This record gives sequence, C-alpha cells and structure tokens, in this order.
Amino acid sequence: MKLAIMGCGAVGTSVAELAGEYGHTVTAISDSTGAAIDSTGLDIETVLSEKRSSGTVGENDPNSALESEYDVLIEATPTTLNDAEPGYSHVVGALERDRHIVLANKGPVAERYDDLREHETESDGRVLFDAAVGGAIPVLTTIDNLGRDNVTAVRGVLNGTANFILSRMGAEGLDYEHVLAEAQDLGVAETDPTFDVDGTDAALKCVILANVLFDGGYALSDASVDGIQDIPGPALHLAAEDGRTIRLIGEVINEEVRIGPRLVPDNGTLAVSGTQNIVQIETEHAGRLNISGRGAGGPETATAVLADIGRLE
Amino acid sequence: MKLAIMGCGAVGTSVAELAGEYGHTVTAISDSTGAAIDSTGLDIETVLSEKRSSGTVGENDPNSALESEYDVLIEATPTTLNDAEPGYSHVVGALERDRHIVLANKGPVAERYDDLREHETESDGRVLFDAAVGGAIPVLTTIDNLGRDNVTAVRGVLNGTANFILSRMGAEGLDYEHVLAEAQDLGVAETDPTFDVDGTDAALKCVILANVLFDGGYALSDASVDGIQDIPGPALHLAAEDGRTIRLIGEVINEEVRIGPRLVPDNGTLAVSGTQNIVQIETEHAGRLNISGRGAGGPETATAVLADIGRLE
Repeated sequence: MKLAIMGCGAVGTSVAELAGEYGHTVTAISDSTGAAIDSTGLDIETVLSEKRSSGTVGENDPNSALESEYDVLIEATPTTLNDAEPGYSHVVGALERDRHIVLANKGPVAERYDDLREHETESDGRVLFDAAVGGAIPVLTTIDNLGRDNVTAVRGVLNGTANFILSRMGAEGLDYEHVLAEAQDLGVAETDPTFDVDGTDAALKCVILANVLFDGGYALSDASVDGIQDIPGPALHLAAEDGRTIRLIGEVINEEVRIGPRLVPDNGTLAVSGTQNIVQIETEHAGRLNISGRGAGGPETATAVLADIGRLE
Repeated sequence: MKLAIMGCGAVGTSVAELAGEYGHTVTAISDSTGAAIDSTGLDIETVLSEKRSSGTVGENDPNSALESEYDVLIEATPTTLNDAEPGYSHVVGALERDRHIVLANKGPVAERYDDLREHETESDGRVLFDAAVGGAIPVLTTIDNLGRDNVTAVRGVLNGTANFILSRMGAEGLDYEHVLAEAQDLGVAETDPTFDVDGTDAALKCVILANVLFDGGYALSDASVDGIQDIPGPALHLAAEDGRTIRLIGEVINEEVRIGPRLVPDNGTLAVSGTQNIVQIETEHAGRLNISGRGAGGPETATAVLADIGRLE
C-alpha cells in the first residue's frame, strides 16, 4: 500500500521507518512546517536525516501531502480537543477522496466520532484507529473480534506516565512532585504533563472505547475525569498497609465513562507497574480477558498502525 | 451462516446454544451415536433436551451431518493424536465440498497441519482454529494481527487443570495426589487427567502455535514435553522461600517447542492462579503483550469459535 503520513513525531517517524518491512511504500510525509512527496516512494532514511539537519522533512507545503498519491492516510498529528483540528479535516479530506485512514491521533475519534462515521458511510474509504487506544495493546481489534454486543465493560490502566508516577510513589514512598520531576528527567513525562496526570489522555481513550461499544454518542465532555495530581504520598502508604495500591483507572461501564484514581489489590491484575498499560474486557459468555503491554512509544504504536493497515488490504 | 456442528460435548453444545445470538442457524449437530439435521434450522432447545433424555441428539447416522447443508463445519469432536481421526477426515471432507471449517479440536491442526493446509489450498473453504489454543484468549488472532514475522517468541500457561493443581499445591502446601483428587471432585480435572498433567494438552497448543508461526512442519513428536506429576510438594515450598513458584510453561522459541514445569516469580505475570491461562507474545517492535483469561470451558471456547465464524463472513 502507498502511505501518506501526516505528522512526524515518534509515531509518524516509526511508521515511516517500519513501513518497508511490512511491504508498504511511503509516498508522502509531512510535519508542521513542510512535506516530502514522491509518488514512486520516498527514501525514508534521507527524509529523516534531512529533518534532523534542517528541522523539517521537506520544502513542500505540509498540506500538499494530503493531495498526494496514496492508498492510506496515516493521521499521526498531535491530539487536539473539541474540534479536533487539523486531524479531523485530514480524515474528512481523505474520505472525500475515497481513501482509507489509520489514526494514531485520538482527537477525531474521541471528540467528533459521529461526524466522522457519517463521512465514512459516504466514502469507499474506511477509518481504523486501534493505535489510538493502548498503543501496542490490540484493544479495539479484540473487541471487534468478540463482537461488541458480547462486551459488558472495559476498564484499565491507559496512561503510562500516570502509572509510572503512581508505581514510583508507591514503591519508594516519594511524593507526587518529586516523582514527576524524575519522570520528566527520564523522558517518561513530557515537559507539560497536564493531559497525562489530569486524566485527559486516559479519558480520551475511554471515550473512544465508548464510541466503539455503543456506536457513537460520546465526547470528552461526557466523561467524569479525575487526575492523580492531588494524591498525597501517605495515601499510597496507607493503601499498602491494607495490601492495596492506587492506580489511575479508566472505565466504560453501564454506558458511562469514568476516569480516576482507584484502590486496587497490590499484586492484582490491574496493578501493572512502570509505564505498562492493561485493559480488562468483561464479556457476556467468555469471562474476563486481560491484555497488558506497552501502551505508548513510537515503534509500539507504529506496530498497531501497521496492523490496522494490514486489515485494509 | 448455516452451521453443522460435529461433536456435542461442552463446546459443541455451547456453540449450538449461542449461535442464534450471533445471527447463525444450526442446520446439523452430531454426537458419537447420532445426528439431528434440518436444513431450515434446528430448534436447539428441543435437540439438546432430546439428548438429555435419550442420550443422543437424533436418530440419523452421525456422519450424515457432514453431508448436510451448511456454510461452516464446526469440528468439536474430542482431540485425538497421530492420525487425528475422525476430526481430520471431517475437515478434509468439508474442504472438498468448498466449505469453511472452524476447529475447537486440536488434533488436525497439531498433528496433520501440513496435509490440512494442502487440502485448503485446493478448496474455496478456509480453516480457522483460534478456539483450539487458549479457549477465550485470542492468541492466533493477535498473532495474525501483529504479523507472524513480527513475533519472536510465544510462551504461557496453556492448561487450566495443571495450573489449578500447581496453584493449590503452592497456596496450601498440599501434595500432588491430594490436590488432583480435589480437582477431580470439583470437576476441574477429568477422571482421566493424563493429557492435562503430563503436558500433552499444553504441548498440542504450542505445536499449533509453532505451525502458525513457522508455516507448518510441527507435530507433537517434535515437542519436548514434561508434565507436573512428579513435582514433590516441598519443591513449591522451597520455591516460595525464594519468592518464586512453579508453573507448567509452554514455549515456542528459536523454532523449538518445549513444555515443562518452570520456576517463575511468585507475583509475576506468568504466575496466574486457578484455572486461568496466560499467553505472552514477544514482538520485534512492540515489546511483550500478555493476554490472560479463561483457557477452557464450553461458553468460553464457543465464543472463540463464534469469533472465527465472524471472520469468515
């Protein structure tokens, strides 16, 4: 397949680097300032080396990648809230050209799911987005496989940064500010970690899950969201005395979306450590499935993008 | 889809009971002594009540179900070794009629994978068998989704009976014979538990995984297999003092298939308890995925069968 990649952060870069291994050709790639385009296939090494030296992948207008020749548009620009732009318009534009879209960007499928599905019904293109929820964890594929009517609830740890902070606070008895600074030093937390620690990122993933399970109708404003910023260090100590710990748990249950810190058994399935993510899928007839793995990261998320591309062939 | 179900044990019965909920019609079902057939769709409640009262599902010859009108043959007769009969012939017969087959029976895909794939290439029918490995755990679907070239190893706990016995031996300090008797009382172990405790059942599942990962070439005779019958109770006690426990682990790694008792960290991911199963999939670019859930049981395995049927539509 010919791929046009919008966004050249960790995920976009990894998709470009791995595409050849999966038999695909990258015909366009854009970042916020420019684009490289070659309908016969870009030399990815050259493009990425160009970006390292000059700061951009190429001299074309970034949006020219949208007009290029491709089978699948990879939407890997940063997640934005509310109107979910510019990702949303990228998706709609590709659908209007009857092209497929694979999203790593959560915005369009969290904030404007119903609009997006409406455009999809009028197009020969399909929209897939397993990479947007849980990185390498194939949550949406597994739900699709089980049949959404057979799924009664989904819950899990869906933000690696928040989980790293809570794991360290619990294991070392350190307070939130201290561990956050450590996480930033290690590159586990971003300079502005707001969306990770205030629950927004996990909430967007749960909103996407709710849209998939209930065929739309949800946006971030429908979720009840609490973050981990105000958890005092001693709370984890008290939990530990009782054989428990605290995790930021997102849940989609009884048609409600809730995200917040919860007490969970210390050695229980939900108490994954470090940046691991876990998803529990409750089913009607097959009990509970637990899937854990790397919930973020360039190559991990790119693997999910490439799996979605594989389903379009 | 019209389904013909060969085998009316726990899995065959559950598939029949759940088929309607998934939009399918059961046109034939057979057990070892008879068959019920109705090309317009059987009344499952009546058929199963007939089996409860008379001991058989119907008065037709069991093999007549194979000649009936159906889109998908569900092969849920007991797993047999070596020639994998009669399951193997059921599969080949359905392929010769260009019908699809979904297997819960491990024999044909463990012992005669290459022969079966050869018949499949000459047929319009496809053969799917995710229900044969790990019950409700979507192991094969996830590998297919990742792309088998991206999978570097698979390991896990693939037999719930053996895991129940080891969990109880570890938690209660009881010896093997005592816990086995308890498991038989609870219905967790069969009257003849040989294949569960000697590693054969887990080995067959790993052989199937090897066939999928390496495109065939494996049978049970290629696996190195040790069971749990000879583990002395004190071994678990000694392991516990070291923060570890013992689990029956199956592995497919470096093109080898090995099954045997292994020391694993006591609270580690592989130390699932009771009848739970877990599969770890090591990937090239996406780290390790862990999937745990119910590895056996009628409705659980039937859910996997119905997911496979869904993929054929």
